[in-house]
Amino acid sequence: MKEVSNLKDLMGFHLLSLYDAELHWSDTLKDSARAIASKELKTIFEQGSKTAASHAEKLKKIITTLGKTTLSKRKNLIAKDLAWEIKDLQDSAADPEVLDAALIVTQQCMNHYMIAKYGTLSSFARLLQLEDIAHSLHEIMEEEKKEDVKLTALAEENINIQAKTALIL
Amino acid sequence: MKEVSNLKDLMGFHLLSLYDAELHWSDTLKDSARAIASKELKTIFEQGSKTAASHAEKLKKIITTLGKTTLSKRKNLIAKDLAWEIKDLQDSAADPEVLDAALIVTQQCMNHYMIAKYGTLSSFARLLQLEDIAHSLHEIMEEEKKEDVKLTALAEENINIQAKTALIL
Repeated sequence: MKEVSNLKDLMGFHLLSLYDAELHWSDTLKDSARAIASKELKTIFEQGSKTAASHAEKLKKIITTLGKTTLSKRKNLIAKDLAWEIKDLQDSAADPEVLDAALIVTQQCMNHYMIAKYGTLSSFARLLQLEDIAHSLHEIMEEEKKEDVKLTALAEENINIQAKTALIL
Repeated sequence: MKEVSNLKDLMGFHLLSLYDAELHWSDTLKDSARAIASKELKTIFEQGSKTAASHAEKLKKIITTLGKTTLSKRKNLIAKDLAWEIKDLQDSAADPEVLDAALIVTQQCMNHYMIAKYGTLSSFARLLQLEDIAHSLHEIMEEEKKEDVKLTALAEENINIQAKTALIL
């Protein structure tokens, strides 16, 4: 069945997929925070887990407003596979500082994926004159951007330098 | 075996994964271009396929310089997943303009994923004083950004508006 007939359907398609991603990612961040060496990074991951759960709540409301009822319908493969990449890196990284650097890379991939999706969906909502939804999606995107900036600063000023040092030990 | 002992290893881990992603994505763009209604978007996808192949060539050189020989070693699941999303959308979209809008969303997710990875790897290379590699990775990132900007303009000025119209037909 052709279930995506227009821009509103396409928005629904991606909102359902993002809802699954945020729920999955909230668990992933909570679990991987336990393996983190840097106190500062651990805090960002723990806070990120709560933020992802709050994004899922916001999405649930938006999806209900749009009249979509089957919330668990669409699995998000990106979140599943980036979670798998984290497990892979946890098995492969010999040094805790290198693992911290690795976790930042994967988390920033997730941030950028989210920024791309929320940015586009916010512009879809604006075009469909769903101003409240557009605003809410834009707000989530801004939170993703903030986390990304925070991670870049921590990586460049601290964690990558420690991970580099592992090279010469 | 713990194969990622330092920042250089971590860079190798992601370069191999990106090499697989670029090869896979070059094919995906070439195939999906055939289903595109907009002439302008079709050209961007065809050009994007060639750009992805050229990025794979550049990565091959970098990986060889770093002394990694097993090029096919690491599969990139994100490229595989997004290619699957395109197939899913091709099956689900009832309208050619909606499919065009949908393909832009997925392609921009790939662009953002690439921007995040190449940006980080370029900063790893700079930190490791591998200036030529840092420059080359930064250049690839800039090409990804350019494509992303081009797609946003085309989506907002043309394709999303047509996809919205599908709503009221």
